[in-house]
Amino acid sequence: MRATDVIMKKRGIKGQTLEPLTKEEIKFIVDGYVSGEIPDYQISAFLMAVYFNGMNFEETAALTEVMLHSGEVMDLSGLSGPFIDKHSTGGVGDKLSLPLAPIVAACGIQVPMMSGRALGHTGGTLDKLDSIRGYRTNLSKNEFRDFIKHTGFAMTGQTKQIVPADRLMYALRDVTATVESIPLITASILSKKIAEGSEALVFDVKCGKGAFMKSLEDAEALAVSLVETAKAMGKKASALITNMSEPLGTMVGNFLEIEETIDILQGEGPKDTTDLTISLAIEMLILGGKAKDEAEAKALAEEAIKSGKALELFMDNVSMQGGDPKELMLEYKKRRSEFTQDLIAEEDAYIESIDAFAVGMAGVNLGVGRNKTTDGVCAEAGCELLKKSGDKLSKGDVIMKVYSKDKESLEPAMKLLKSAVKYSQNAPAKQDLIFKTIR
Amino acid sequence: MRATDVIMKKRGIKGQTLEPLTKEEIKFIVDGYVSGEIPDYQISAFLMAVYFNGMNFEETAALTEVMLHSGEVMDLSGLSGPFIDKHSTGGVGDKLSLPLAPIVAACGIQVPMMSGRALGHTGGTLDKLDSIRGYRTNLSKNEFRDFIKHTGFAMTGQTKQIVPADRLMYALRDVTATVESIPLITASILSKKIAEGSEALVFDVKCGKGAFMKSLEDAEALAVSLVETAKAMGKKASALITNMSEPLGTMVGNFLEIEETIDILQGEGPKDTTDLTISLAIEMLILGGKAKDEAEAKALAEEAIKSGKALELFMDNVSMQGGDPKELMLEYKKRRSEFTQDLIAEEDAYIESIDAFAVGMAGVNLGVGRNKTTDGVCAEAGCELLKKSGDKLSKGDVIMKVYSKDKESLEPAMKLLKSAVKYSQNAPAKQDLIFKTIR
Repeated sequence: MRATDVIMKKRGIKGQTLEPLTKEEIKFIVDGYVSGEIPDYQISAFLMAVYFNGMNFEETAALTEVMLHSGEVMDLSGLSGPFIDKHSTGGVGDKLSLPLAPIVAACGIQVPMMSGRALGHTGGTLDKLDSIRGYRTNLSKNEFRDFIKHTGFAMTGQTKQIVPADRLMYALRDVTATVESIPLITASILSKKIAEGSEALVFDVKCGKGAFMKSLEDAEALAVSLVETAKAMGKKASALITNMSEPLGTMVGNFLEIEETIDILQGEGPKDTTDLTISLAIEMLILGGKAKDEAEAKALAEEAIKSGKALELFMDNVSMQGGDPKELMLEYKKRRSEFTQDLIAEEDAYIESIDAFAVGMAGVNLGVGRNKTTDGVCAEAGCELLKKSGDKLSKGDVIMKVYSKDKESLEPAMKLLKSAVKYSQNAPAKQDLIFKTIR
Repeated sequence: MRATDVIMKKRGIKGQTLEPLTKEEIKFIVDGYVSGEIPDYQISAFLMAVYFNGMNFEETAALTEVMLHSGEVMDLSGLSGPFIDKHSTGGVGDKLSLPLAPIVAACGIQVPMMSGRALGHTGGTLDKLDSIRGYRTNLSKNEFRDFIKHTGFAMTGQTKQIVPADRLMYALRDVTATVESIPLITASILSKKIAEGSEALVFDVKCGKGAFMKSLEDAEALAVSLVETAKAMGKKASALITNMSEPLGTMVGNFLEIEETIDILQGEGPKDTTDLTISLAIEMLILGGKAKDEAEAKALAEEAIKSGKALELFMDNVSMQGGDPKELMLEYKKRRSEFTQDLIAEEDAYIESIDAFAVGMAGVNLGVGRNKTTDGVCAEAGCELLKKSGDKLSKGDVIMKVYSKDKESLEPAMKLLKSAVKYSQNAPAKQDLIFKTIR
């Protein structure tokens, strides 16, 4: 087999029908890249051909499987499942993994959660967890197993041993304009999620200004690709396509989002994040066979909150991963950056919308997120949204309390946040939280 | 400017109209590649994006110009033009450059001809010239100028200083399945032809089984691209789209084709190669302002043969470039490989067709051409076609005399040649020699 021929097959030959690649051809390309036998200039041409001609679900499943086996796959044998994880395509104020894991763990689902860090306008679960003093997100394989065994979930970062093919390919895609390809995105997400040991997966595909996928059409294409490819690999899967035009919940930040997590687990969280967490829990409970229908699953998830079991598991996890629940609760609603300013309503009006992307980019300025993977983040920075779209304002009302890593960064962030808020004299139409469910 | 952004612009961004690249963007990519600042993995992704999205004539002209100036441009100042060259996209039995240059030189056109070598099934002008004992195709710049001054044409190979960008890009395209792109082919051909000093160009775009372009549609797209891009660069240009389904003329080989060249220049060549040479000469004479119409140009070209002037210039050139015309004429029709066999008619029938590609591939076996650029060729190998399509055969007639570099290679070549000949009980329809003229 020659790499050029596989590239040409994916590129297509004039006058011939485009044929899907075989698993052997895909394996040849990926293994050759990882081993260094196929040079990156052939891989980037291949990736661009995939960008233009796509891949069917069988090809995408083959790509995922080959990438998956380029590295270590977590061994959860000896533990009793079902092992189910959730993956979000990333948004602003999206802390849903944090309350979701203990809620479904309280209902008997085992959640082997490997997460990422903030990049660009989107936040990162690991950065939020790291804002809990003492909390460790670099668990060893044994710790990861033990903690799942103990509380039903564990939260850690991806090790270098997990899917090295994705790390190599992602770096190449980033500099060759081949990121925005549904099959490549699918294989990148799925290979990592399956490598952590999940048997079933729920995808939260974000859609809107603050999401990677701006249109419903694109979001649906990705959701269908994720679910169908997972199924082609023998995994159960479903996806929610959810609204990411406005930040989720009332907190955008690292420690701020830990606080909102506690609110949700105490049954006092904002309606949108609570509802969405329950909706994702329903999917996981049904996939895991813990409930026969949505109503039963919903009741189970709500009971996990009401009974205090989910919060207890969350605190158990905090303590097991190196944090101190007592200290955490002492800082709850108090730990804030001293560099603060309020965003004030400029008129008597309704809030028509708050642009999630602009808030996310302001968050990068404030120290919530980062531009480069090597930048640090600030635990105490972020925005507290006192008002959201649909709320009626009087001139002078505080819309957001804004916290910055330092004094200088406040001004550019305030400018962005000001531009993020659109006013209206009429109450805006209420937006859907979930656009579509793909099962 | 970032390479990734230029790749993305050529790739296209969802929801945005595809914008043509600016000359600055194209220059940034090509110069960056040649200087080593832009890595090959970005260039190959760029080339694949060009494969899919093409380039308009302005972009192709900008690419050609930037490639052209990546190296040396021949300085023909001090000589008086017009400087006009012909380029063929390559075929089997295509020796037309050899008689064409002295014919138009006899009419006052200056031909700065830089040619290539045989590769795959197509022959190479340099290999044919090298079969003349003593003939040198590695002229210095001064020799090239001097010889043009003396006889009106010179024949040499491309130096390493000519369009290094094309050498780099071609090697990359070859291993990344990005060869078959009309704008990339156009820029590769044009940049080299303009670098040799030509002010006007005539293209012989071959079409059919033995050509790079198999369909008239593809050949026409390339012909139009070559002519329009040349015009966008301020050069006069025209193109003939010509039939390459059957080998041209009666000789396929290196020294064999030198013999046919002499035949043509003596007014005794096969009808097809003579007619096509005259047709190309007509285009060159009109572009060069030596004739006001086709009839006048045809008369001039025919007179150059009839008067013996073209043959005289050919022999002058042979002698100037190191050969010996007397020795050449002593070997004429005599110099043949001893490893020979005849292809015999198997039935009483017409020849319906002789597949040029199969004959070309047999030529590689025989030693006319090469599979790799590092292979050598054999001067005395080839095929003499005693019969061509439309000819009526009696069983046992000799269709071809076949000459091989060695004994072992005869058998596989004979097998290919046998398969190349299709018989018919009825006289086949006569095929056009020229499908179309693009001016």
